[in-house]
Amino acid sequence: MNKSSESLPRHAGRTTLGALAGLLLLPASLVSAQGTLSAPDVPARVLPVPTTVSPQMQKIIGNPINPNWRVIPQTPEEWKAQVAKAAATAEKGLPAMRNALKVKIEAVTIDGVKAFMLTPEVVPPQNRNRLLIHVHGGCYVNGPGESGTSEATMMAGFGGFKVLSVDYRMPPDHPFPAALDDAMTVWKAAQKIAPARNMGIIGSSAGGGLTLAMVLKAKMDKLPLPGAIAPGTPMSDLTGAGDSFQTNAMVDNVLIAYGASCDVRAAMYANGRDLKDPLLSPVYGDMAGFPPTILNTGTRDLLLSNTVRVHRNLRRAGVIADLHVHEGQAHGGWYRDYTAPESKETFEEIARFFDRHLGR
Amino acid sequence: MNKSSESLPRHAGRTTLGALAGLLLLPASLVSAQGTLSAPDVPARVLPVPTTVSPQMQKIIGNPINPNWRVIPQTPEEWKAQVAKAAATAEKGLPAMRNALKVKIEAVTIDGVKAFMLTPEVVPPQNRNRLLIHVHGGCYVNGPGESGTSEATMMAGFGGFKVLSVDYRMPPDHPFPAALDDAMTVWKAAQKIAPARNMGIIGSSAGGGLTLAMVLKAKMDKLPLPGAIAPGTPMSDLTGAGDSFQTNAMVDNVLIAYGASCDVRAAMYANGRDLKDPLLSPVYGDMAGFPPTILNTGTRDLLLSNTVRVHRNLRRAGVIADLHVHEGQAHGGWYRDYTAPESKETFEEIARFFDRHLGR
Repeated sequence: MNKSSESLPRHAGRTTLGALAGLLLLPASLVSAQGTLSAPDVPARVLPVPTTVSPQMQKIIGNPINPNWRVIPQTPEEWKAQVAKAAATAEKGLPAMRNALKVKIEAVTIDGVKAFMLTPEVVPPQNRNRLLIHVHGGCYVNGPGESGTSEATMMAGFGGFKVLSVDYRMPPDHPFPAALDDAMTVWKAAQKIAPARNMGIIGSSAGGGLTLAMVLKAKMDKLPLPGAIAPGTPMSDLTGAGDSFQTNAMVDNVLIAYGASCDVRAAMYANGRDLKDPLLSPVYGDMAGFPPTILNTGTRDLLLSNTVRVHRNLRRAGVIADLHVHEGQAHGGWYRDYTAPESKETFEEIARFFDRHLGR
Repeated sequence: MNKSSESLPRHAGRTTLGALAGLLLLPASLVSAQGTLSAPDVPARVLPVPTTVSPQMQKIIGNPINPNWRVIPQTPEEWKAQVAKAAATAEKGLPAMRNALKVKIEAVTIDGVKAFMLTPEVVPPQNRNRLLIHVHGGCYVNGPGESGTSEATMMAGFGGFKVLSVDYRMPPDHPFPAALDDAMTVWKAAQKIAPARNMGIIGSSAGGGLTLAMVLKAKMDKLPLPGAIAPGTPMSDLTGAGDSFQTNAMVDNVLIAYGASCDVRAAMYANGRDLKDPLLSPVYGDMAGFPPTILNTGTRDLLLSNTVRVHRNLRRAGVIADLHVHEGQAHGGWYRDYTAPESKETFEEIARFFDRHLGR
């Protein structure tokens, strides 16, 4: 028995990282073998909700852990049922948010790819010849149809931009590279709407990974690059490397731990392809020549390291790259409640960044 | 018995947060009472050293926890002996570092305040009329004399700047505001060496707190402000607010937990003054009009929240503020080994920031 499992609490009903490893077939090295190299033992604890954030954000941070974190459907039908249920819940809140933020939605088809155009009631003059392309999150499996437009709606409403949100194809029916292909189809078609330098790409979580993958793909295919991008808490490394997969395991109440439901969904997207392929794990891509990039994450985010490693790679490549780390927030805290002041602040920060770097 | 202490591991010889609270008289609310509001329970674990950093940084991250973290001297003489011992150890490595980085040191006295001028062998033309003021770390008690010049030496060597490191007075003999007074004396005197807009201020940990406090004091006293500042992992909140005091407790192998040795030393500096005084906890200060600021911290830093909260406050005040969060690093990892590539990279990043924002 190794040092790690010896120190696990025995309290009935508590989930431990040891149990997690057994359940989810994590590589043993992640939870035990490196004992001789290990930094301090970390005792069990209950984390209080921080007092340094808004009441709305306290509620998000204090939420019980995602009940689906280790519920893994076994058949395509079970996956579709789980996804449809989550989508129905997500969609319920959208009309009120669009109303409050004064954003209208229109379903469109762009060269055969489904998408939604989000248009704010007021588009300020400097944004009239600009367009943002949005790729939604959901671990490459969730967020179909309108349910994937929440972040795009906040970007449109708080930022005053027209946002074209791509309803890309997803597993179980359509694994890699369907999502990226759809996003690139829209990127190419969008050149007819606005010059590339006037366009930004935004997306978080899987959408953050896709945002980075789109720029890598555009470089590979010698397509024009966007004027700026805003990957939020990007799934930039599907291999499990990154220190916050350890330090924020069980601290992040959304993603919970590496190997949990989100990574199972991402593996379904990867469909057997090498997870180190930069189009799946963009942290391994060559970021030279990337457009100015604004990154967001939170101190409790399981993908804190995924985010800061991308930031450092961009800076090493000489790219203008701004990092924002939000107090107390787990994965994507800033796009979960449009009434939280932290949400408004973050989208306004992104909007200022786009305004500074996009053409007009 | 509360939920938190119920889940503590019973393994002999393990330090737990519950034991910590007893030992160090932490407010009970920090470790238990907020159970009803709490986010996920976090089980005990051993953290492996990340593979995503250099071998030198792996060694720093894998170091056993600071042996003095709960060794609290009981008399002024015991404090001085502990500080002198640490200083002697720190000084041993300095000649080799100055030699490797081609930096010379000269003891100077500025209007009665002791200081050290660090001068690199080559000062590039754009830096000839520039000067950086350095305020060292050490929880306001450690780092006297030459032992406090390590970070200043790296800044001079990697950045090509002349750096004037203030050997400010410290407790137990000289509590607040002695350190700040000394730093301000040097700041005022330095106006005769270079125009304020050509000068930057840099410091980490307590030195990061002092860097921010110096700008707040300069604003209060209507003195000229520096052209840019570089507070690293600043002790910006001595009150214990900030989520990473919880999430990175026992994860950071340098500061370990709120209420440990560093905070006892800071309390000795505060000397009974309200810890919310912005000159002690600058996160509570008005940051409007601050010069461009570059902040550094690490994903395992106990002061991750202290750092990102300052970043957000600066941004809310409309200040140019760049944040850099270093993969896997605990408190101040980038200034512990000048041979680590992460150290060179970080000081070069700071140097570029100063170059962009300082007058010439």
